[in-house]
Amino acid sequence: MAFGPEEITARLAEYVVDTAPCDLPDAVRREALRSFFNIVGCTVGGGRHEIVDLADRSLAPFAGAPQATLFGRGRKADVLHATLINCLASSIYSFDDTHEQAVVHPGGPVTAAVLAMAELRPASGSDLLAAFALGVELECRLCKAVTIPPAKGSIAWSGTGITGGFGAAAAAGKLLRLDVGRMRHAMGIALSQAAGFRVMHGTGVTSMMPAHAAQTGIRAALLAERGYTASQVGLEGRYGFLTVYAEEADNEALAGALGQRFEILRNTYKPYPCGIVIHPIIDACLHLRREHSPEPGRITSVAIQASPGAMALCNRRNPKDELQAHVSLHHWTAVAFIRGTARIQDMDTETAVRDPALMAFQDKVEATLDPALAADAAVVTVTMEDGTRHVCAIEHGIGSASRPMTDAELERKFVDLAEPVIGEARTRTLVAQSWGVENLADAGDLARSAA
Amino acid sequence: MAFGPEEITARLAEYVVDTAPCDLPDAVRREALRSFFNIVGCTVGGGRHEIVDLADRSLAPFAGAPQATLFGRGRKADVLHATLINCLASSIYSFDDTHEQAVVHPGGPVTAAVLAMAELRPASGSDLLAAFALGVELECRLCKAVTIPPAKGSIAWSGTGITGGFGAAAAAGKLLRLDVGRMRHAMGIALSQAAGFRVMHGTGVTSMMPAHAAQTGIRAALLAERGYTASQVGLEGRYGFLTVYAEEADNEALAGALGQRFEILRNTYKPYPCGIVIHPIIDACLHLRREHSPEPGRITSVAIQASPGAMALCNRRNPKDELQAHVSLHHWTAVAFIRGTARIQDMDTETAVRDPALMAFQDKVEATLDPALAADAAVVTVTMEDGTRHVCAIEHGIGSASRPMTDAELERKFVDLAEPVIGEARTRTLVAQSWGVENLADAGDLARSAA
Repeated sequence: MAFGPEEITARLAEYVVDTAPCDLPDAVRREALRSFFNIVGCTVGGGRHEIVDLADRSLAPFAGAPQATLFGRGRKADVLHATLINCLASSIYSFDDTHEQAVVHPGGPVTAAVLAMAELRPASGSDLLAAFALGVELECRLCKAVTIPPAKGSIAWSGTGITGGFGAAAAAGKLLRLDVGRMRHAMGIALSQAAGFRVMHGTGVTSMMPAHAAQTGIRAALLAERGYTASQVGLEGRYGFLTVYAEEADNEALAGALGQRFEILRNTYKPYPCGIVIHPIIDACLHLRREHSPEPGRITSVAIQASPGAMALCNRRNPKDELQAHVSLHHWTAVAFIRGTARIQDMDTETAVRDPALMAFQDKVEATLDPALAADAAVVTVTMEDGTRHVCAIEHGIGSASRPMTDAELERKFVDLAEPVIGEARTRTLVAQSWGVENLADAGDLARSAA
Repeated sequence: MAFGPEEITARLAEYVVDTAPCDLPDAVRREALRSFFNIVGCTVGGGRHEIVDLADRSLAPFAGAPQATLFGRGRKADVLHATLINCLASSIYSFDDTHEQAVVHPGGPVTAAVLAMAELRPASGSDLLAAFALGVELECRLCKAVTIPPAKGSIAWSGTGITGGFGAAAAAGKLLRLDVGRMRHAMGIALSQAAGFRVMHGTGVTSMMPAHAAQTGIRAALLAERGYTASQVGLEGRYGFLTVYAEEADNEALAGALGQRFEILRNTYKPYPCGIVIHPIIDACLHLRREHSPEPGRITSVAIQASPGAMALCNRRNPKDELQAHVSLHHWTAVAFIRGTARIQDMDTETAVRDPALMAFQDKVEATLDPALAADAAVVTVTMEDGTRHVCAIEHGIGSASRPMTDAELERKFVDLAEPVIGEARTRTLVAQSWGVENLADAGDLARSAA
C-alpha cells in the first residue's frame, strides 16, 4: 500500500484515534504487556540512581502540585516533572528495551507519559495498555522511517531522542481522547521539539534525551487538548520532520500496513544492564561457569571471538566508572566468571568497577574480531592452568529477537530491579499489577504502588 | 585565527565565563541595550495575546512556586514556566528582532531566561545586560555557523529554535557564575535539546519554538550548576551539534575573533509587526500617504515592485486570520493607505483582517517581481481616479541594518506595545528601567514592574 506524501500525519493520527483496545491482535497485546512490564521494572529500579536524584533535586524547586508518582522516590510531583524523572529512571541503567532493527528504546518515554497521565485523568488499565502499544508502535515506525534503509538517515541522531516525544504524545493524546485534528496538533508540537544526538552518549544526557522526549510528548498532548495548534502536516510537509531528520525517509515503514504490521512485536528486552552487543559474551561466560565451575584464580586466559559491533563499541579494558563499565566487555567477562552474575550491582563504580579482583581478572581477557559473527553471537574459550580448555559458542544471546526473554526471566529481572528500591512486599504487588494491568479499573493504582 | 575542531565548546565557554561587563566595547553595550529594550517591550506587548493565554492556562496546572514574573499577566510562576511564557509573548507578534544575516530572532530566548533568573538569584542590571549580550552573541554566531555560507546548512531548520537554547543557557549560566566545566555541560545539555523546523511557521508553534528553546536553556544551566553532565564537546564532537544541523559548519563564524567581532552589532529591530520583507513597502505607502494624502476611495490602483523575498513569502491577498495577515503585503498596503498606521492592532483578525474596507482595498493592489530589489527595498506607484500618479522608491526600509530604528522610534514602539497591557504609568517606569538597566542594583525590579 502506498501513501501520498500529503497524508501521513493524518493517517497516523486517525489510526491512533480510531484503534480500540479490542482492535489489537492478541499477540500485539501480549508483547505490549511484556514491553510494559519490563519498563515498569526498569523505572522503579532506576528511581534512586544518583543521576535521577540529581535531576530531581535540581528541578524539584520548579515543580508543581503533587499529581503523579515519582517511581521509587516516595513522592509525587506535577505530571510534567514526574514524566521527566520517571523516564530518566527507566533509562538510567540502559537496561530497558530495544527494537530489534531500529536503534530506539521505545518503552521508556511512552510509559512515563501514560502512567503520569493516568494519575491526572483516571484511565482503565486496558485503555492504558492500548495507548502504550500505539505510542510504541508509532515511535518504532518513525525511527525506522528515518534510519533504516531504504531510508537514508544519519546514525548521529539519538533514535529515542528524536522519536520518543512523538510516541509519548500519541499515547498521552490517546488517553486524553483527542480527536483527529487535535491529535495531529499534538503530534506536530511534539515533533517540533524532537532532539538529541550521539555525542552525548556516555554522559548524564544519555538518559536525559529520552526523558526530555517523554516530557515534550505529554506536554504536547496537554497543549493540543486545549486547542494549541501546530502544522497539520508536521511529518510530511515541506520542511517537515521527515525532511530534516533524514536525507530520504521511508514513508512505507512509517505509515504502511497500519493495524496489520506491528513493530512492537520486534521489541526486545535486555537481560543484562550493559551494551547489548556484550550480552552473548556474558551468556557464554555464565554458561561456562555453570558447566565447569572454573576457579577464577586458576584461569590463565579468556579468549573472546567477538562481533564487529562488540569490538567497535565495547573493547574497553579497565573502565573508569559506571558509565564506561556499561560498555566494557572486559568488565562483564570478569564479573561473569568471578561473581557468576551480571546485575546492576555489578557495575557500581565503587563496589564493582574498582574491585581489585575484577580489575586484575581483565588482564586475562583478550577479544578478537570475528567478522562473521552477528551482533547477538559470540564464542568464548577459557584456558586453565593445567591446560584444560572449555569453549562455549552462543549463536543467539538471551534477549535477542531469536531467543526472547521468557516471562519468568522478565519477572526475575523486574524483582532484581525493584526489590532494593521499594522492598519485597511492594514489589510483589507491583509485579501482579503490572502483569494484570489490563484488569485494573484505575491504572493510576499501579503508579501509586511504585512510590 | 583558526581553531582546532576539538576546541570550540571549550573556547566559547571560556569566553562567556571570562568576559566581564567592562570587557564589552561601548558600541556593543549600547546595541545590547537597544536589543534588550526592544525585546522587553515586545514581551510586555505580547503578554495577553490569546495564544500566550492559551499556553499559560494549559500549563499553569503543572507550574510551581511563584518565583518569576509573567510579563503583562499580573502573576508569577516558577522560573521554567515563566521563561517559556515570557519568551512566547516576546515572539507572538513576530515583532521582535532579526540578525541582519542569519535568520534568527536572538533577543527573546535570552531575555526570558536572564530576567527569570534575575528574580530567582538577584543580579545587578549591569551583570544582566552583559549576560544578555553574551547569550545573543553566541546564539547569532551559532546560527550563522550552521546556515550562512560558507556553511552548508538547511533552510528547513528554525534558526531560533535550534540556537536559542544555547544562547539562553550561556546567558543563564553566566548569571549563575558557572565555571568553564559546568558552562560546557550547560551548553551541552541545551544543545542536546535544540529543535524546530519551518513546516510549523504560521501556527501556534512558530512562537513555541523560541519559547521552548528559552526554557531548555535556562533548565540546562540550572542542571549543570548542580553537576549534571553532558558531552564536553557538544558542538564539535563526533556526532555533535555541528555535524547534525549542517552538512558543513563554519567554525570560524562560530568561534573566530571572539571579543573582537560582535554579531550583536548586526541585530535589527522591526518597526512593523509583520514579515520583514513587507517593511519597505509599508514605508513607501506611509510616505505617499503623508506627502499626498490620497483619498483611499479615489485610488484606482497600487502597483508594487517587490523584492524576490517579498514575492515568495508575502504575495497573499485577503488573508484569513492574524497569522496569515502577518505575511500578506496586500493587507499591510491597505492598512497603510486607509489607516495610516502599521501596528499590532492592524492585524487583529476581527477588527482588521476582516474589516470590509481593508479587504476591498486589497483588490486594487498588484505586486510584481523586481529581481533587482534587495529585501529591504520596494517601489510603490499609486494611481488616482484623475490619472495622477505618485511614486515612492525605498532603498532601505526603516529598521534595516542600513537605516536602523532610532532610540526614539524604539521607545515609541515600546510604548505602543506596553501601554494597552500594563497602562501608562507602569509603562513609563518600565521604559526608564529598561533604558537604565545597567544602573539597577537588582535587575529583578525591572521584571516585577512588568507584571
